[in-house]
Amino acid sequence: MKALENKILEEGIVLGNDILKVDSFLNHQIDVELIDKIGEEFANYFKDKNVDKILTVESSGIAPALATAQRLGVNCVFARKKQSLTTDENIYHSSVYSFTKQVMNELIVSKKFINEGENILMIDDFLANGQAAKGMIAIIRQAGANPVGCGIVIEKSFSNGRQIIEDMDIPVYSLARIAKLEPGKIVFEEN
Amino acid sequence: MKALENKILEEGIVLGNDILKVDSFLNHQIDVELIDKIGEEFANYFKDKNVDKILTVESSGIAPALATAQRLGVNCVFARKKQSLTTDENIYHSSVYSFTKQVMNELIVSKKFINEGENILMIDDFLANGQAAKGMIAIIRQAGANPVGCGIVIEKSFSNGRQIIEDMDIPVYSLARIAKLEPGKIVFEEN
Repeated sequence: MKALENKILEEGIVLGNDILKVDSFLNHQIDVELIDKIGEEFANYFKDKNVDKILTVESSGIAPALATAQRLGVNCVFARKKQSLTTDENIYHSSVYSFTKQVMNELIVSKKFINEGENILMIDDFLANGQAAKGMIAIIRQAGANPVGCGIVIEKSFSNGRQIIEDMDIPVYSLARIAKLEPGKIVFEEN
Repeated sequence: MKALENKILEEGIVLGNDILKVDSFLNHQIDVELIDKIGEEFANYFKDKNVDKILTVESSGIAPALATAQRLGVNCVFARKKQSLTTDENIYHSSVYSFTKQVMNELIVSKKFINEGENILMIDDFLANGQAAKGMIAIIRQAGANPVGCGIVIEKSFSNGRQIIEDMDIPVYSLARIAKLEPGKIVFEEN
């Protein structure tokens, strides 16, 4: 998505060799015009998947998930992150490791909000090692629902996240795919 | 807002005498149709305030803030919550106590995203003791910006939050005002 790639080039800040800060439009400040375009693009791409609900992870996933949900006319659920293991028979949970923050998080979704047989579209801000997506997929499967796709705003294609998800036969659609990240230099995958 | 009051009566769950769970449409699952109406209502109410930007707090404030930002055609910023004091000259921060979770949180906003002289509309999911709003106001003032209003989805009007904000001459607009909360019983303020 050209508008997103341009925004990343203009405002993205590279820290070290694998962290991209996009605080000015996605992760802290939300550019409302861009987020609407992101929602439109995901909704259009996944329109034939009979999506019943969207699943994302707090906090940065909420804006693109909501924008997509608005376009598809479905509700969205955001998984809560906790740093302690919660045992509660009313929730689905899954442990995921955050490489960026180097902590183990527990993803939590109330059993009430994902139902057997539903088609669930996952949306997230970043895909790198696929940990958050794996966690969401585990929760969707615990519920007996179907993970019908995974929409990613920014993919670090030099990591193995896409492979992990595609190996489970779940289609991945990323709006920007970054092949190389160096201080002062962001290289996108050729289309 | 009648549609919201009805939703609270149908799906809200009262825990103890002052906790209202609205996980099914606001805090965990987001009812997209309702959230759009919430955004429309806030945007309409605050339309003469020349709002430059919306400020909220992660995670539950993001959906109503974004829906309002879409209607007003402005960007929105969500303050990050941390449980440890962060010292970084590039951020504004403010300490707020969460009565619900009984923890001290640090609200954090990058200095880049709130500018001197801007008119900032605050949006949040709940108002009870006004701690989160006070934290946002402190940050807006640190930036030399103007807190032009505070839009609240659900106000616990038996707490003193509204008073605290109105004493600072900041208008508060709540879409549902709860006068009394008991297990099995939710009483709204008379209009």
